[in-house]
Amino acid sequence: MSHNYKIIDKPNLNMVKGFHTNGVEAHIKVTGRRDVGMILCDKVCDTFATYTTNQVKSAHITVCKEHLQDNKAQAIIVNSGYANACTGQNGINDAREITKKVGAAFNIPSENVLVGSTGEIGKRINLERYDVAVDLLKKCIYDENDNNFTKAIMTTDTKQKFAGIDAGSYKIIGTAKGSGMIHPNMATMLAYIVTDAKIEPTLLNKAFRENIEKSFNSVTVDGDTSTNDTAIIMASGMAENDIIKEETSSEYETFKAALKEVMTGLAKQIAADGEGATKFITIDVINAASEAEAKTIGMSIAHSPLTNTAMFGEDANWGRIMCAAGYSGIEFDFTKATLKFSDLKVFEHGEPTGFSEEEAKKILQQDAIHITLDMARGDKNWTVWTCDFSFDYVKINADYRT
Amino acid sequence: MSHNYKIIDKPNLNMVKGFHTNGVEAHIKVTGRRDVGMILCDKVCDTFATYTTNQVKSAHITVCKEHLQDNKAQAIIVNSGYANACTGQNGINDAREITKKVGAAFNIPSENVLVGSTGEIGKRINLERYDVAVDLLKKCIYDENDNNFTKAIMTTDTKQKFAGIDAGSYKIIGTAKGSGMIHPNMATMLAYIVTDAKIEPTLLNKAFRENIEKSFNSVTVDGDTSTNDTAIIMASGMAENDIIKEETSSEYETFKAALKEVMTGLAKQIAADGEGATKFITIDVINAASEAEAKTIGMSIAHSPLTNTAMFGEDANWGRIMCAAGYSGIEFDFTKATLKFSDLKVFEHGEPTGFSEEEAKKILQQDAIHITLDMARGDKNWTVWTCDFSFDYVKINADYRT
Repeated sequence: MSHNYKIIDKPNLNMVKGFHTNGVEAHIKVTGRRDVGMILCDKVCDTFATYTTNQVKSAHITVCKEHLQDNKAQAIIVNSGYANACTGQNGINDAREITKKVGAAFNIPSENVLVGSTGEIGKRINLERYDVAVDLLKKCIYDENDNNFTKAIMTTDTKQKFAGIDAGSYKIIGTAKGSGMIHPNMATMLAYIVTDAKIEPTLLNKAFRENIEKSFNSVTVDGDTSTNDTAIIMASGMAENDIIKEETSSEYETFKAALKEVMTGLAKQIAADGEGATKFITIDVINAASEAEAKTIGMSIAHSPLTNTAMFGEDANWGRIMCAAGYSGIEFDFTKATLKFSDLKVFEHGEPTGFSEEEAKKILQQDAIHITLDMARGDKNWTVWTCDFSFDYVKINADYRT
Repeated sequence: MSHNYKIIDKPNLNMVKGFHTNGVEAHIKVTGRRDVGMILCDKVCDTFATYTTNQVKSAHITVCKEHLQDNKAQAIIVNSGYANACTGQNGINDAREITKKVGAAFNIPSENVLVGSTGEIGKRINLERYDVAVDLLKKCIYDENDNNFTKAIMTTDTKQKFAGIDAGSYKIIGTAKGSGMIHPNMATMLAYIVTDAKIEPTLLNKAFRENIEKSFNSVTVDGDTSTNDTAIIMASGMAENDIIKEETSSEYETFKAALKEVMTGLAKQIAADGEGATKFITIDVINAASEAEAKTIGMSIAHSPLTNTAMFGEDANWGRIMCAAGYSGIEFDFTKATLKFSDLKVFEHGEPTGFSEEEAKKILQQDAIHITLDMARGDKNWTVWTCDFSFDYVKINADYRT
């Protein structure tokens, strides 16, 4: 199905009716960079969130869950530097206190304020730094700026991540941070999506949840599912569109497809900017017996350090890919499978095709690598995204705290 | 229970009655190193094996399974350089041909010859090189040597791996290769264990299988389960012990415990010599609700690239360990858990203990690191072994084929 919307070239959250964002230097952990960002809406929004499935959860998730029982929110405040995870009851109290500070400063109930944190696990956030942040944000939240919110929530990210769709009468725009500890399971690191579309809350939630699996949950950088993963969508309803209220309507289909563009757009950017990444890798598992099977095999390949180091080395070591497919836990006859780098078939009928190593090398020298595994046992497909495994991943993560 | 046996200081397979081993330079892939090794017994042995659970299996496994239907073997021949995996029907024919060559040269039925391969996936082995190997082995198999077999089966291993027990009337001695693509599932890379003990085949098999889970299957280097993992035990029955035939006897208990020493000894050496390893890491998950739960959590920690890069960086980033425990898939209350580096408690009651970073650093500067996670929800324990994740892992694996 083709949809009548267009991708926004340089999206930023402030383009969406009702939304204001900024990011400030509050010296949460280090100086010289923005580290507290805020999204504020002119009115209370229908708001939905998904969170990490990690049993060890950040305090910000506990507080977001409390505040989203009514699926309503008007502001989100987020810091980088500290994750506010493994900080005990104090950490939860701190997160609640932060929402109170924001509520008081912007004259909204603290229950309509959400909070997010990313960074080092196990250290409490200095709340006095948050007083500074809120004072600064109060002065600048309505100022024009493209990306200060996104800058403020980045950690080891090297690129800002945005995706946006203009559907004519409304827009959907999102931003995210990613990089390390990325193997979202039910959510991603931190992703914030805003829209001015008028849409029934149940449909907003449905479209959001159904797109999660094929976007954020299909990305892996290192297989480490974070304690803090959070994706939130807010809808201001301030656009001029007729309210979307039928699940069977083409308007809902269009909204869902547009939202998927935004969510997969952010997901791919997270994979491409994985810690130390030099390659963006797309893995298509096709003609599987089920979508679940295709995803399991795709993720098994995407997780394989041996595959990902080979991609870093631009080495057409296809045997490692077949090996990773083989230990995924899915039973299949590997002699029926076909493996390709771009259009170059490298493995078929249980053995290598005698492909040209030179041609394979040329493909692997590109920044974006496309691997297709054809299982030849059904008609279900899944796509996962990852990046290569480089020296810099080790460097970044051996030195992270020091 | 204490057992009346002793660890052999410098074990080698030739110490066991009836067994002869050697390794030769056959130029299978490169020159200048031994690359084909052989174990030969004076008589037919009761023999059992376990293999990788990977759906993509080496041809050597297909042939070993055929030849071990009667659980009898007299010789094992193993090459490094090529894995003989993903080589189609040709690869299976090659493996059969190899056993015929050995059978003809040593005058034993080819059905009593086992074969093993390790190295690059997807290339056929040049059988003429095997003719050279068999000729050379024929001349030297009875020569005294400590470790030529083990040298011949190594790939990126930096250390030879041996473990041996002298139980008085009999011995059990094993050797293994490990290094990369190590996350044995039901077997290990290549491990060969020989004993001269007189023992009923069913009990030999039982002791072997029961020890697999707590030895080779509790090791991970990179989470990549190989296409070639194989562990084989051969018993010549040439020792003077009274035959072990009762499962309830103390003699069986002793044999099983001695075999466990050998198998865990080899497993730990595989972890310690993981590709690029600078640290040997032991993870004890204690007081879990079940052994399966303890193992799942231990393996989740051991697989975490973020944990393993932090260990490489000697950084007491305990939050990553709690995070990895949290995403293992086991539901638990992390605020009840306690985490220690050696005897230093770092996390308790849902938050850090306020431990001395200096003291933690001192512990992590050691070559061997001991992590204990106390789940406080039962009385079951499991130990897993792994190594840190260093620049050299990436270097070795980005360059492997080139």
